[in-house]
Amino acid sequence: MHFELTKEYLEELKVAVESNAEAKVLELIEGLHAVDVAEILDEQSTKDAKAFYTLLPEELAADALVELDEDTREKFLDTISSEEIAEKIIDNLDSDDAADVIGELSEKKQDEVLSHIEDLEQAGDIIDLLNYNEDTAGGLMAKELVRVKIDWDVATCIKEIRTQAEDVEKMYTVYVVDKNDILQGRISLKKLLLAPDSQKVKDIYNEEVILVKVDVESEDVAQIMDKYDLVVIPVIDEIGRLLGRITIDDVVDVMREEAEKDYQMASGISENVESSDSAWSHTRARLPWLLIGLFGGVLGALVIGVYEEQIRIHAGMALFIPLIAAMAGNVGVQSSAIVVQGLANNSLGLDGLWKRLFKELIVGLINGAVLGLIIFLYNFVFSDDLTLTFIVSISLVAVIVFAAIFGTLVPLMLNKYKIDPALATGPFITTVNDVFGLFLYLYIGYLMYAV
Amino acid sequence: MHFELTKEYLEELKVAVESNAEAKVLELIEGLHAVDVAEILDEQSTKDAKAFYTLLPEELAADALVELDEDTREKFLDTISSEEIAEKIIDNLDSDDAADVIGELSEKKQDEVLSHIEDLEQAGDIIDLLNYNEDTAGGLMAKELVRVKIDWDVATCIKEIRTQAEDVEKMYTVYVVDKNDILQGRISLKKLLLAPDSQKVKDIYNEEVILVKVDVESEDVAQIMDKYDLVVIPVIDEIGRLLGRITIDDVVDVMREEAEKDYQMASGISENVESSDSAWSHTRARLPWLLIGLFGGVLGALVIGVYEEQIRIHAGMALFIPLIAAMAGNVGVQSSAIVVQGLANNSLGLDGLWKRLFKELIVGLINGAVLGLIIFLYNFVFSDDLTLTFIVSISLVAVIVFAAIFGTLVPLMLNKYKIDPALATGPFITTVNDVFGLFLYLYIGYLMYAV
Repeated sequence: MHFELTKEYLEELKVAVESNAEAKVLELIEGLHAVDVAEILDEQSTKDAKAFYTLLPEELAADALVELDEDTREKFLDTISSEEIAEKIIDNLDSDDAADVIGELSEKKQDEVLSHIEDLEQAGDIIDLLNYNEDTAGGLMAKELVRVKIDWDVATCIKEIRTQAEDVEKMYTVYVVDKNDILQGRISLKKLLLAPDSQKVKDIYNEEVILVKVDVESEDVAQIMDKYDLVVIPVIDEIGRLLGRITIDDVVDVMREEAEKDYQMASGISENVESSDSAWSHTRARLPWLLIGLFGGVLGALVIGVYEEQIRIHAGMALFIPLIAAMAGNVGVQSSAIVVQGLANNSLGLDGLWKRLFKELIVGLINGAVLGLIIFLYNFVFSDDLTLTFIVSISLVAVIVFAAIFGTLVPLMLNKYKIDPALATGPFITTVNDVFGLFLYLYIGYLMYAV
Repeated sequence: MHFELTKEYLEELKVAVESNAEAKVLELIEGLHAVDVAEILDEQSTKDAKAFYTLLPEELAADALVELDEDTREKFLDTISSEEIAEKIIDNLDSDDAADVIGELSEKKQDEVLSHIEDLEQAGDIIDLLNYNEDTAGGLMAKELVRVKIDWDVATCIKEIRTQAEDVEKMYTVYVVDKNDILQGRISLKKLLLAPDSQKVKDIYNEEVILVKVDVESEDVAQIMDKYDLVVIPVIDEIGRLLGRITIDDVVDVMREEAEKDYQMASGISENVESSDSAWSHTRARLPWLLIGLFGGVLGALVIGVYEEQIRIHAGMALFIPLIAAMAGNVGVQSSAIVVQGLANNSLGLDGLWKRLFKELIVGLINGAVLGLIIFLYNFVFSDDLTLTFIVSISLVAVIVFAAIFGTLVPLMLNKYKIDPALATGPFITTVNDVFGLFLYLYIGYLMYAV
């Protein structure tokens, strides 16, 4: 029922494309959506993809281009002339997608493409959109929408909507504006359909409309649309004029990217790397975090080096180094992840910093007490060094409490200073907690063996 | 513009509610959406919330209930009689929300509430929905939708839609069915609006409609709607009859929950715990993972214990225990996270297992070579034990390669056997890699000091 790409399918398609059997190709892609076609193109070699692409119907080709991976799209656009981009691709796209595609071109090629767009209104819309930062509402919005004037009657509305709707693929809602184009509210198609022809818009429109200003950040747009379960949201300028609208599909992408970014941070991956990317991309995305880990490891070695003599005498202390380091890391990651997730979905609640840290203290103490007791019993039974038994348990509790509080504090601080709190998860917090945990353990050991 | 909850607001509201100043309360909540009201209720004490809730307009109260945290909602429903639930709440909800609310009640209370619903059609719809597994398309869908028969003309459609639309809050699309209620396609309101009255549906409807069967898993529904940028998707039964529809807002929740679940797994949190939950919930969500870490630490201690004598002689070896363990953990988490994310967003591509492992081998070797060289140079300069210098570097490369391959293999295997691959991220993979990495390091040390 839904398209599933297989190696066999790719092979069959390749043969058909190579033998230039257009009818066979069209048969193979029958019923496919642009996103399926993009999936095929992403899996093909550039040469095969290019040959296949030229056989596609124009509109499908344009839509598929929008759905491609950015890297693949860039390669593609390089091989297409500015004139073709303007006439075959841009002409078939909504203003937001068109602006995204053009925005990826070089300055020079942008100008060329824009000069080849025949519909001057479309070209103007695209230029307007290119001026917005892509991480704001302006960068997400499309100009295509249906608007009616507040003093019209229903019959006029329906006539006007028929004209405007030709440019708008999906209507969702009709916006109501005044004579200065200031957004006044909205009216559903359903209501227009149910109302008598002579009814005035101003008597039946809905004044309550959730909207965003054009310079609001994408993340905030996503949060608002998610919170209020909106499918579409209008975008206004500083004085309230209706500029465009953002639809949920674009915002779902923003939400997914945010979630993936946090996940990658927590896992120590610094770029948006996918499993199918090259070994080199993987190395580049992963090595920086491992360098942090290595640096932490060297710091750890320095800390232990200070107590090397102590370990030579009490070699048993070495046994629990990994335990202390691992627990410090795990607790820190837990605490920071909870804060980062709370910040991401706005569910931190109204508690102040001290209350939050106090709760972490309690959680750390409970967890520390349970785990400290277990390790105490283990060592009490299996170790003949009672001092070491105490050292390990006491250190474990101290390390867990410290890591919990530190893991909570750091992302909150980063967030306060407008730095991405997700930086605090993953390798960074693990490394800092590792090193400090080790120091705590060895110092407690030093004190207690000295007794 | 958008509601932001503050402590001052809560205080003002509390005073107004306690003095039973209904006008003041209504003024305070003017323009608020159900989700804002739910946010307020979630922050209030149960007593305050209850008092506030009874002052709310009926429809807003019903909608706010749906948006509440599950725990808070459960407490609330306990205090409301079955009759009131049926008449004041269920009557104001769509069938999917109504079924969700009733599904949370005890069997006995469910029967009571159902028997108090006056609209028998609604009661029937709810009973139908309660029979579906909540993690399937059936559990997500609502029964409310607008359907037209394929042999109608546009005028009949519009007349029929006017009747049906009263029950349907948002229409999005009109479904076309045959006389047996088998889904044939869809027709947009826009098209109906633009077509002449006498036109037949069968000449203008769109046959291509992406749909799901009622028993498809929620996750798959989310993936399909996301992939094809759908706002609404129809649900059919085994023989193709139209049962209901799923809207994007419900699916966004599924997507978020999936992403959060994976994130929590990677961070070592076992339940859906939020920052604002009690210290006890936090402990419960975090302790199990820490026990895994503790168990790993004890295993690590046993491994080191075997080589205790070696460490007593070459105490310098202890210095790099945290480095080896940390790097093993970091690399393992990176590798498993990439696989888990690839599985989650279906971007693994078509490569087979061996090709994937070979790529990890390459990535591991490059990363290992770079990091191994750095630590070699560091030790070469600062350490006077050349054997140790070699041991640390060789072990580091070996550990990184092993952790990369193991971290890739485990989630792929889990996924093959239908176990959640996210289990392989976080504490589990860290712990296994820690222990094995230590063993590798100490064994290589044993071999090289023996030379």
